[in-house]
Amino acid sequence: MTRDTTPAELEQTLADAAEAAVPLAASAPAVRAGWIRAVADALDAASGELVPIAQRETSLPEARLKGEVGRSSGQLRMFADALEAGPLLEVIIDTADAAAKPVPRPDLRRVLVPLGPVLVFAASNFPFAFSVCGGDTASALAAGCPVIVKAHPGHPELSVRTAEVMIEALTAAGAPAGTLGLIQGYDVGVTALKDARITAAGFTGSVPAGKALHEIAVTRPEPIPFYGELGSLNPVFVTQAAIDARGKDIASGYVGSYTLGVGQFCTKPGLLFLPAGHGLQEQLVEATGGVAAATMLNERIAEGFSSGLDRLRKVDGLRVWSEGGGATLLQTTVGELLARSDEILEECFGPVSIVVEYASVDELVAGIEAFGGNLTATLHAEDADASLAARLVPLLTARAGRVLWNGWPTGVAVSWAQHHGGPFPSTVGSIHTSVGVTAARRFQRPVAYQDAPDALLPAVLQDDNPAGMSRRVNGTVTTAEVSR
Amino acid sequence: MTRDTTPAELEQTLADAAEAAVPLAASAPAVRAGWIRAVADALDAASGELVPIAQRETSLPEARLKGEVGRSSGQLRMFADALEAGPLLEVIIDTADAAAKPVPRPDLRRVLVPLGPVLVFAASNFPFAFSVCGGDTASALAAGCPVIVKAHPGHPELSVRTAEVMIEALTAAGAPAGTLGLIQGYDVGVTALKDARITAAGFTGSVPAGKALHEIAVTRPEPIPFYGELGSLNPVFVTQAAIDARGKDIASGYVGSYTLGVGQFCTKPGLLFLPAGHGLQEQLVEATGGVAAATMLNERIAEGFSSGLDRLRKVDGLRVWSEGGGATLLQTTVGELLARSDEILEECFGPVSIVVEYASVDELVAGIEAFGGNLTATLHAEDADASLAARLVPLLTARAGRVLWNGWPTGVAVSWAQHHGGPFPSTVGSIHTSVGVTAARRFQRPVAYQDAPDALLPAVLQDDNPAGMSRRVNGTVTTAEVSR
Repeated sequence: MTRDTTPAELEQTLADAAEAAVPLAASAPAVRAGWIRAVADALDAASGELVPIAQRETSLPEARLKGEVGRSSGQLRMFADALEAGPLLEVIIDTADAAAKPVPRPDLRRVLVPLGPVLVFAASNFPFAFSVCGGDTASALAAGCPVIVKAHPGHPELSVRTAEVMIEALTAAGAPAGTLGLIQGYDVGVTALKDARITAAGFTGSVPAGKALHEIAVTRPEPIPFYGELGSLNPVFVTQAAIDARGKDIASGYVGSYTLGVGQFCTKPGLLFLPAGHGLQEQLVEATGGVAAATMLNERIAEGFSSGLDRLRKVDGLRVWSEGGGATLLQTTVGELLARSDEILEECFGPVSIVVEYASVDELVAGIEAFGGNLTATLHAEDADASLAARLVPLLTARAGRVLWNGWPTGVAVSWAQHHGGPFPSTVGSIHTSVGVTAARRFQRPVAYQDAPDALLPAVLQDDNPAGMSRRVNGTVTTAEVSR
Repeated sequence: MTRDTTPAELEQTLADAAEAAVPLAASAPAVRAGWIRAVADALDAASGELVPIAQRETSLPEARLKGEVGRSSGQLRMFADALEAGPLLEVIIDTADAAAKPVPRPDLRRVLVPLGPVLVFAASNFPFAFSVCGGDTASALAAGCPVIVKAHPGHPELSVRTAEVMIEALTAAGAPAGTLGLIQGYDVGVTALKDARITAAGFTGSVPAGKALHEIAVTRPEPIPFYGELGSLNPVFVTQAAIDARGKDIASGYVGSYTLGVGQFCTKPGLLFLPAGHGLQEQLVEATGGVAAATMLNERIAEGFSSGLDRLRKVDGLRVWSEGGGATLLQTTVGELLARSDEILEECFGPVSIVVEYASVDELVAGIEAFGGNLTATLHAEDADASLAARLVPLLTARAGRVLWNGWPTGVAVSWAQHHGGPFPSTVGSIHTSVGVTAARRFQRPVAYQDAPDALLPAVLQDDNPAGMSRRVNGTVTTAEVSR
């Protein structure tokens, strides 16, 4: 069924999620990890069925989609591992200290517990990795939260079928009914967001939609956290030394990155800052001209891209270097960008990017300072640039969640250290990530047990550490037992 | 000066904080830890001057205030230690893995960086520990954020003098000018909260004020995190076995806890659930009658308490067991509480509490389920209650940030494992704490550096770990060096 969820169906989905929250919160970490691994295995097993549906609905190529399934199942397993080993629960134990000053200290044991049902607004551009089986769902399940996914209308059949595969695996593995639910329809999603049973929401999408949903979430009678990944320009800054050393590689790498996946990545590099006289125009134009036209994710995105291009074409100071075919390359200078930063620094989702030429290091710095928050900022520099780079790094750090050297921002590795987030407007909630192990933290709250008898504590907090978890005890991380 | 800050003064304070943000973010953790320890030392040294001002302005007794200074300086040192040792920066390093599937993994190094200037709305009831030199300030400074404190009007002279002592210590230690600022006046605070230079806010106070400020913070053009600790009822549940074993101690402990500090603790136990036929009425009334009348923090709080008492006296089903003198004890039953939960479960800040009698375990459970979010929930039980306690613990965990056994919720130990927070309405932002080392996380955002040359990384991320910090490397916490 790819129609809007009815009010009765929504009510049932919310009731099921609320009911599942209790046994999910009580589930042992290793057991929950098993459920999550079962979902990962089922996804891999269903790849042959799901990928063709995704191809048909999103126009993305098979190889990319197969990789995305692998990324998504791998992500689920990463969360399962971190849950079972302990770090995801952030156990902290301070044993009693009768000699503590100014007052004796009780025995305190802190663990992260799940918030409750989480609503996930799926994205269109990653039909697996940021959709029904994506990072928000994986991290919320690992946290112990039931998840209701509001399907993206760009891939409705895939969403329904993915949810069925996941629910079947969860059920077979013994997870509570209601652990995962799927709803469809924008208004249905808004109704769910306002429902008292929903305790947090994740969102990946546009700035206007994200801001509207954020306001609903935080002004409810009981405000809930809303983690929104909105828009990002992902500027790239190149030094003269880097041009001298590997200008051609930079030109081809850049065009490859901004046109990857038809430019439909939240980490697409939207601007490339080059020193004036870089001599790369010909190569950039040639590489852009060689990009084949490709179908975008859906009509709405294609129309948005088309009108965005029309808008950019009319901005004074932006010149077209290459257009037609599969990509559009524009050019301007730092001076012109600063004069019209509101117009030039508005994200256009799709295969378009802007070369910005700077005449001096001061202009480069001024160019960096024109940016607000971004998911990423990239520097291409050489060893000889050490003092310049040292000046630029703090400026990039202040504006981005991920700072890259001599690479391209598209492609977000799933690992412990990853951070996919950034200052507003790239996200609402810059202190959180939507990729990497710490993403689970968005859906957990701490509870501290004071002077509790060992037998009544959750197993992860008990003296003998039955699951051999990593815990912080009196300040030090250890898997050792605790003595009172 | 104890008058409202002028617009020109506010502008200067905001500009100074914004300017200080850059060198603060760049400061080495050990250096910043030194600045924080200098503040702690200065506070201790000034205790003899500050405590008498606090006594005069808050009517709190000397011993309590001296203890609060020690608690506050100790808290500053705890944050300095966690900053210097590493855990506060949450360094995570994943070295490159060319064999990673589905794609090779780059070198990623994540660290928490400061958000920028933080606005702290000070509380009235802890003129040191939750005011100018309190936990919000300490955790934000440790995070590397400049702090502007909006002074509480209940202790204006103390606020000004505390800030002077702290600023003098910071300056002498070499911290940037603008690291700490003080402003006065409610409207001034609101203006500051709306200012684009403020990147986060902490608040401890009433539900209405907290909700109003929260809404301002999250609906700004650039929304910012708002960490509000609002109201809490802190219910205490006592089993029959606990009454049988130590009923008299429970009665005296309870009266001592709810009247501590003239009942002006956010963790004051507001309700005590006892089994019907507990036989403790006489002792409870006697203990309450023995509490001496004391001056409240200020006129406004005294008036609020007086009108709150008048309101409670008129609620059907609430009976007065003891009043007059320094405390008021009311009584009701679970059945009556459930019938009028909106009226009975409204916090009254001051020395008043309600005994709630339950006739069965099912009534006890129904009583627990009547509660929303609280900072604390307390259970008094015996070993013989194991099965009953196992049933109650998940219900308490779902409703509180700290769950206590056989103790009293007043008194919040400052340590690694502490959690001072809870589900709404006890806080806005239940995933965060305002006490304990992890409180700093409220004012930090992650940044991941990808494939960065070692020399350009912040020292805490460099291969050889020059400061010997605790870091998570490829999944495991260690102080070892990293090889690429």
